[in-house]
Amino acid sequence: MRGLSILAAACTLSCAAAQTFQRLGGCPDLGCVFPPDQADFLPGQFFDIRLEVHSPVNGSEARVGVPDSDFKFTITKKGSHSISAAKYFKIKEPELERWNFTWYEDLFAQDANQPSLVNVTAKAYRRVALYEPGEYEATLTYYGHEKTVANWHVRDLPTKRRAKNVVLFVGDGMTTNMITAARLMAHRSINGKYMTKMALDKFPILGHQMTHSMDSFITDSANSATALYSGHKTTVNALNVYVDSSEDPFDDPKFENIAEVFRRRYPDGGVGIVSTAFLADATPAGLAAHTSDRGEYDHVISAYYEGLKDYKWTKWNGPDVLLGAGAENFLTSEDSPRDYYNLFSEKGYNVAWNNTALHNAPNDEKLLGVFQTSNLETWLDRNVYQGNLVNQSNYPDGSGRDADDLPGLKDMTLKAIDVLHERHGDDGFFLMSEAASIDKQMHTLDYDRSLGELLELDDTVRATIEKLKSLGELEDTLIIVTADHGHGFDVTGSVDTDYMDAQEDDRSKRNAVGYYHNSGLSQYTVGGPKSLRYSEGVHFPARWDPRYTLHAGVVAFPDHRENYQVHSEGPRTPAIAAKDKKNGYYVNYKDAVTGFLINGTLPVSADQGVHSLTDVPVFAQGPCQELFGGVYNSIDIFFNMAECLGLAETKGKGHSGH
Amino acid sequence: MRGLSILAAACTLSCAAAQTFQRLGGCPDLGCVFPPDQADFLPGQFFDIRLEVHSPVNGSEARVGVPDSDFKFTITKKGSHSISAAKYFKIKEPELERWNFTWYEDLFAQDANQPSLVNVTAKAYRRVALYEPGEYEATLTYYGHEKTVANWHVRDLPTKRRAKNVVLFVGDGMTTNMITAARLMAHRSINGKYMTKMALDKFPILGHQMTHSMDSFITDSANSATALYSGHKTTVNALNVYVDSSEDPFDDPKFENIAEVFRRRYPDGGVGIVSTAFLADATPAGLAAHTSDRGEYDHVISAYYEGLKDYKWTKWNGPDVLLGAGAENFLTSEDSPRDYYNLFSEKGYNVAWNNTALHNAPNDEKLLGVFQTSNLETWLDRNVYQGNLVNQSNYPDGSGRDADDLPGLKDMTLKAIDVLHERHGDDGFFLMSEAASIDKQMHTLDYDRSLGELLELDDTVRATIEKLKSLGELEDTLIIVTADHGHGFDVTGSVDTDYMDAQEDDRSKRNAVGYYHNSGLSQYTVGGPKSLRYSEGVHFPARWDPRYTLHAGVVAFPDHRENYQVHSEGPRTPAIAAKDKKNGYYVNYKDAVTGFLINGTLPVSADQGVHSLTDVPVFAQGPCQELFGGVYNSIDIFFNMAECLGLAETKGKGHSGH
Repeated sequence: MRGLSILAAACTLSCAAAQTFQRLGGCPDLGCVFPPDQADFLPGQFFDIRLEVHSPVNGSEARVGVPDSDFKFTITKKGSHSISAAKYFKIKEPELERWNFTWYEDLFAQDANQPSLVNVTAKAYRRVALYEPGEYEATLTYYGHEKTVANWHVRDLPTKRRAKNVVLFVGDGMTTNMITAARLMAHRSINGKYMTKMALDKFPILGHQMTHSMDSFITDSANSATALYSGHKTTVNALNVYVDSSEDPFDDPKFENIAEVFRRRYPDGGVGIVSTAFLADATPAGLAAHTSDRGEYDHVISAYYEGLKDYKWTKWNGPDVLLGAGAENFLTSEDSPRDYYNLFSEKGYNVAWNNTALHNAPNDEKLLGVFQTSNLETWLDRNVYQGNLVNQSNYPDGSGRDADDLPGLKDMTLKAIDVLHERHGDDGFFLMSEAASIDKQMHTLDYDRSLGELLELDDTVRATIEKLKSLGELEDTLIIVTADHGHGFDVTGSVDTDYMDAQEDDRSKRNAVGYYHNSGLSQYTVGGPKSLRYSEGVHFPARWDPRYTLHAGVVAFPDHRENYQVHSEGPRTPAIAAKDKKNGYYVNYKDAVTGFLINGTLPVSADQGVHSLTDVPVFAQGPCQELFGGVYNSIDIFFNMAECLGLAETKGKGHSGH
Repeated sequence: MRGLSILAAACTLSCAAAQTFQRLGGCPDLGCVFPPDQADFLPGQFFDIRLEVHSPVNGSEARVGVPDSDFKFTITKKGSHSISAAKYFKIKEPELERWNFTWYEDLFAQDANQPSLVNVTAKAYRRVALYEPGEYEATLTYYGHEKTVANWHVRDLPTKRRAKNVVLFVGDGMTTNMITAARLMAHRSINGKYMTKMALDKFPILGHQMTHSMDSFITDSANSATALYSGHKTTVNALNVYVDSSEDPFDDPKFENIAEVFRRRYPDGGVGIVSTAFLADATPAGLAAHTSDRGEYDHVISAYYEGLKDYKWTKWNGPDVLLGAGAENFLTSEDSPRDYYNLFSEKGYNVAWNNTALHNAPNDEKLLGVFQTSNLETWLDRNVYQGNLVNQSNYPDGSGRDADDLPGLKDMTLKAIDVLHERHGDDGFFLMSEAASIDKQMHTLDYDRSLGELLELDDTVRATIEKLKSLGELEDTLIIVTADHGHGFDVTGSVDTDYMDAQEDDRSKRNAVGYYHNSGLSQYTVGGPKSLRYSEGVHFPARWDPRYTLHAGVVAFPDHRENYQVHSEGPRTPAIAAKDKKNGYYVNYKDAVTGFLINGTLPVSADQGVHSLTDVPVFAQGPCQELFGGVYNSIDIFFNMAECLGLAETKGKGHSGH
């Protein structure tokens, strides 16, 4: 058995070195405990426990034998003695499960098609909770004397509720750099002094949150939504579960999110979900779904509708308001035989398919608004280049008509507040509102559209504050504006687009770029005779097509061409697939044709940009605002909101949540 | 005369469109007032006024005639009546000056070598001040009835001093994105939870400041240092002056910086300047020099030594401590016949040329430390790849020996505090400490070296807090850590360098990049047998050359090659000049040879990256820390420091500073 111990110790190194792929994230040893080491919990928060013991058959960790079927698992609050988990939580010992899986140790192994096979024994303890704040040790003992210890921290939070309402705005993918660029485009300045302020710039409290995953330093929006809503960091693509090594996307160990805890603690509290994405997308889904695969769209919509069917879990009657796009996931299809419009309607929801119906819906009833298929058209297309809205066949009833009466983020958010206030004026509400296409348009390097979405978010925040004031709710509402991750975007100067268009070769075109003093002043705030105008006001550019545009970019990209001009003909497609798809993506020959080519820095299989590492900003005002200053982990957003809503439950029924 | 008025109005548009080049920044009309419209002032702050009237001879603004030699200039505090400036400030009417200058209206005009000629009449009012807080109107009347109005704002600040000392750390070019990357490289985490914190992450207050120039949205370090130190935004390359159109780099209108005001108000207060750059460089120079051209290095060193000779100005006896590099500007040369070492020595400074001498210098005497020629060698070279320090011929005495006993930012900063505390324990001090090569190494795309400097800054901040605590000064010291501008840097994943090295073509090499869950965990914190080690501690990476490195980049760059590996052989040179220099820069064929080529997005004349737009972070602790939360202009850093030091002087001798 000593041999095994050395093997396990060696694994810590070799597994860590296996970077591009990992045997199982959060499990560098052969014994896995989820929630993993260093997990934080809200007192009383429901969670599942998953244990696995791995027996690698081949590869660098290969061992002789089968996975331990007699592993032990104990829980200790620091200072007490160990108790078996079943006894601790007063539940029946779960049954042993067995499976196997394969993985590649690195890119060489993948190229050579040499997977490593791992046999697994496992158990799951479902829906337990820890009520008493403090430090816990969860210990898995396997292969005799091997131990994997998970240190768990149940946070000691005040239980007094300080905020009646919480409004959480998520600017998906939004960074400080993007806010700076959006400000430059939309707000006039004289000699370096802005004459107007963004709504975000008026917030009294600024913080930074770290967005990295549990097992990788770049996150996706599922993983990061999970962190913001539940206080648990997990793996890319996972929603409110830790990811185990089984194939089933629904058996992974779950934990409660803030919507579930809020509704459980305050049955008369309201919940609202608003997004400019398709509603099955990760950021809205994170308030309902529990799955290791964010691509399980039907699960997401069914979780909005009826909560979890497969497991006993928090009673959840769905959100009061659910507004966004992605009609295809509500309509019947091969993947989903149910007509969710009918089901929601039968459950008492009004269903709105356009902006007029949204505005006319009664505020005292539940409301489902699905305004088109796919993601909501961007602010730029809805407000400036409206010609791009035709022939989209995107009406939410699936009829193939065009959606021609679309709301924006502001319409949806203000309506959500009206409904939540009308229905839950006494008990308060939790509302999440997402500007999704800041991220989506940044992915496709369509910086103008992305920043238009950011400015729409800013305008929505401004209008929300006014609305809450007019309802008399502002003082009682914690408002947070943050992001779930970044993109490596910035602006480095200006481009004389006339000059670039007039040059014939790529190197000459680059000389159209002006930097430092030659960057000059923003021309987006200056209206001109040939310009398209949306507004001469302070919140959006006066024109999107000035001669001198922003020299903007991201730090990692596919092959693409740049002429630094607004894509007036519709959202951008920077790269297209080679004839033989194995050869990956090349520059889209139809895109930015007057510009110069930039070869990619991402794998050739990438047709768009990717998320980045940067800490993202947090703006806060209202009760508990002081909790949001300085630098902290993304999970602290959850714990701060939970503290402010008084969600910690330190006196449970014994150890278990049953 | 009405015709002229319409011409001037049209100019507002056409001049604004002249973006890459401007006739004169801050002067869209034909009449120019500096300080310009929207300028802010500390009550009692000395400043010069420059007036110009332009008469463009050709180009889009061409007019018949000569520039007005009979223009009028009046000052009004809002609510009072106008008085001529000479009367207002009780000074003699200055003499009329005349000159002309040329500029290009755009890149086409430059290519065609068709400059626009402008004849100028001008005046300068020297060393005046406004004491009474409030709104002022400064009006230039020219060509009969043309008017250029500058609205000036003298801030109403409390005059009570709240901080004894201010320590201002400037991480040159440092962004939130870089802090996030440095944290990932140097601090260990388990399952998404960092086990240690950066010093910056512990600050109670976080803010963002906007770094743009007065007349362009991308700044350089001179302009931005000026904003931070004086409360006035100006033009790229300018130090503590607004830039007029005359050729003379020393006649531009000046304004007092914080070192000057502090020393004038508290003659027994101490001033310290520390930088890892050459000491004539912009960020240290901004505490002494007044010139439109940061390249006037001899002016900078003489301003440290004796203040301004050409103009009556604030009495300034030089800093108590001046530590950094750039020995060439202290030695006699063609440009500078004076031996500044001797001059400083004669003035009572101890002169230190190496780390030993720095440490041994008495704390009760003034100290000049110049440790090598050029910029200080980077932290990475001084601590990890020390072989790069030989054959540099950089000893500060100009002997051609190697500088082999170099201090770091921490050594210099702690010594500066010792001297300032010993000499000014009663009256307090102002210390600026700059981590200059965060910027310099980011320019050359040497991300490892840049982040090494950032980690050294963080370590210096940590040690400074400890030092101030041990001296009993921490409670009385406002500590600010910020930047002067950004670079568009971020991290988007990891690179399997073994795999990249093994691939033969550029597109295959790109497949070595792992993003999202394939980014994995930071390998820089894990020591290994083949790794170079600096420290197993929490403040620096355990190794700089792991197999899995960061996939990092900037948003704008020259032609270069990337293999994402540390440049162990010395600081990086990404691009080199073509044989015919007119053809610009191409990828350096000796750099990152195992990587793939990325064609540039900057003009081919650029051999390195450039500054970016992003707001930069501000970390604050100590007295007045609450002033530094939220989002604000870079100039507010000056006003907040000035408020905290009680520098506002609201009761002056009449209107004038004389």
